[in-house]
Amino acid sequence: MSSQRATAFVPGHVTAFFSAHPDDDPAVAGSRGAGLTLADGVTVRVSAPDGAVDGDGNDGGGNDAADASDRDANADGGSRTVDGESRSIGAVDDVLAELDATAADVAVETDLPIGAGFGVSGAAALGAALAANDAFDRARTENDLVRIAHAAEVGRGTGLGDVVAQARGGVPVRLEPGAPGAGELDGVPATARVEYVTFGELSTETVLGGDTDALTAAGEDALDRLREDPRLPTLMDAAREFAREADLLVPEAAEAIDAVDAAGGEAAMAMLGRTAFALGTGLSDAGYDPEACRIDAAGARLVER
Amino acid sequence: MSSQRATAFVPGHVTAFFSAHPDDDPAVAGSRGAGLTLADGVTVRVSAPDGAVDGDGNDGGGNDAADASDRDANADGGSRTVDGESRSIGAVDDVLAELDATAADVAVETDLPIGAGFGVSGAAALGAALAANDAFDRARTENDLVRIAHAAEVGRGTGLGDVVAQARGGVPVRLEPGAPGAGELDGVPATARVEYVTFGELSTETVLGGDTDALTAAGEDALDRLREDPRLPTLMDAAREFAREADLLVPEAAEAIDAVDAAGGEAAMAMLGRTAFALGTGLSDAGYDPEACRIDAAGARLVER
Repeated sequence: MSSQRATAFVPGHVTAFFSAHPDDDPAVAGSRGAGLTLADGVTVRVSAPDGAVDGDGNDGGGNDAADASDRDANADGGSRTVDGESRSIGAVDDVLAELDATAADVAVETDLPIGAGFGVSGAAALGAALAANDAFDRARTENDLVRIAHAAEVGRGTGLGDVVAQARGGVPVRLEPGAPGAGELDGVPATARVEYVTFGELSTETVLGGDTDALTAAGEDALDRLREDPRLPTLMDAAREFAREADLLVPEAAEAIDAVDAAGGEAAMAMLGRTAFALGTGLSDAGYDPEACRIDAAGARLVER
Repeated sequence: MSSQRATAFVPGHVTAFFSAHPDDDPAVAGSRGAGLTLADGVTVRVSAPDGAVDGDGNDGGGNDAADASDRDANADGGSRTVDGESRSIGAVDDVLAELDATAADVAVETDLPIGAGFGVSGAAALGAALAANDAFDRARTENDLVRIAHAAEVGRGTGLGDVVAQARGGVPVRLEPGAPGAGELDGVPATARVEYVTFGELSTETVLGGDTDALTAAGEDALDRLREDPRLPTLMDAAREFAREADLLVPEAAEAIDAVDAAGGEAAMAMLGRTAFALGTGLSDAGYDPEACRIDAAGARLVER
């Protein structure tokens, strides 16, 4: 099953609310919270150069790093693009290093805005993990790959819970923080159309790097509410309350949320981004010109090339 | 979000190998093992009669059973069909009782053969859980619904591991037996075409009701092999060895597996059914006229009606 090229798709993820749970071990660090995964997401294409894949695929064990001669041969590193432009993403580089796949050519493609609360960096990291594992025949399990991508994302400070949510798909609820083995997930069973509008970037690193005590208290309250009544309208209401209590609501999102509410719909702000998202036709009904997609049912997956 | 009708799709699941782990608690009982989920699966449509859904949806807590007046009103029970013919499935009935949704009209539809090792009964139970939860607005989480369907399937003796595998999708590896909260899953990251041929029924109840010691020893060996090298060809090879060691191989499946091997492909027998499945075009290349689909990436999900 050695293969030279592989492609993965990872859904976008808008976080409705969260609490931050740092830890020295990036696989244990993470967040509690909930959000929606989106059928709009990130596609990652990985090509292994000739000679980088063990032809016989018999490393002997699934979790061994490749041997030293591979690492030397790959020292130069392959190309990195985002939407066709030369650009690297820190968490992706860390994933490739962990899989001894830095020689890969990696193309990240997405229609989602970057830095606007859709978890694009986490999706790119997870997609790179899935596709590089396949292209380089690294024989890691899904849990291993999620753990590697989660640790890379946490290590770079660009996210705490997107990767595990994106791996699951649907409407993930992060009951306990961290990667598989440490974290614990559930889900709100739902299918729905989702609309979103973006007003600009918001730095995840800045918010997560500051004092997160008030944010975390508000996030825990929101999670308690959702666990009491695990339904989408409750998730949206808990998200609005979280944004207010954690003092994260930006004016453009607040205005959109109010407009959707006035039109009889349900909207909230994506954490962390200058983005409002709504169920059904909420934003359209309120006079916005949103992007629209559905909740993603599958979570991250390899796809046909 | 109260709704009167809902539809769920659940992938088929062919078990490659397994070990049986009985327990007095059906949510803790289950199996270790691995298999493939299939894009060919089971669709379950649930309609709630007028008055069976709480209009305001405010039970107050997510996990309350509905009140006694609902239960009385629903005592008669709704219709049950499988592929359009009047027929009930024990595990489905138990799921509906647990969700206080026996008044539902439930239609199960599948192109998969029943009793041939595709986990149709587990898929029907899980699909009924997802769709009834939605149609009756019962506010259960995904983990709750998987637990209910798993316990119903185990209680009826018709399966031990299909439900948790079908909930996950992909190529699920059951590391620890049981429903969410007890069990533990991983997955082999893979996408592939799968072909299958069925030669008749095999009673899961009879095999699981007999002495399972040899079967379980062989299943544990197979799982150890897959964990050492979590790749599809290893899964298929471990499955063939399991079928021989557990003395479960039926002649028609053995013949098909040998023919696929002779043609350079990978095939195995579905546990428990008179069914052979192969990766890629294995069965076609060996001269069979198989059904074909792909590995299902998503797992069980609500779908648009």
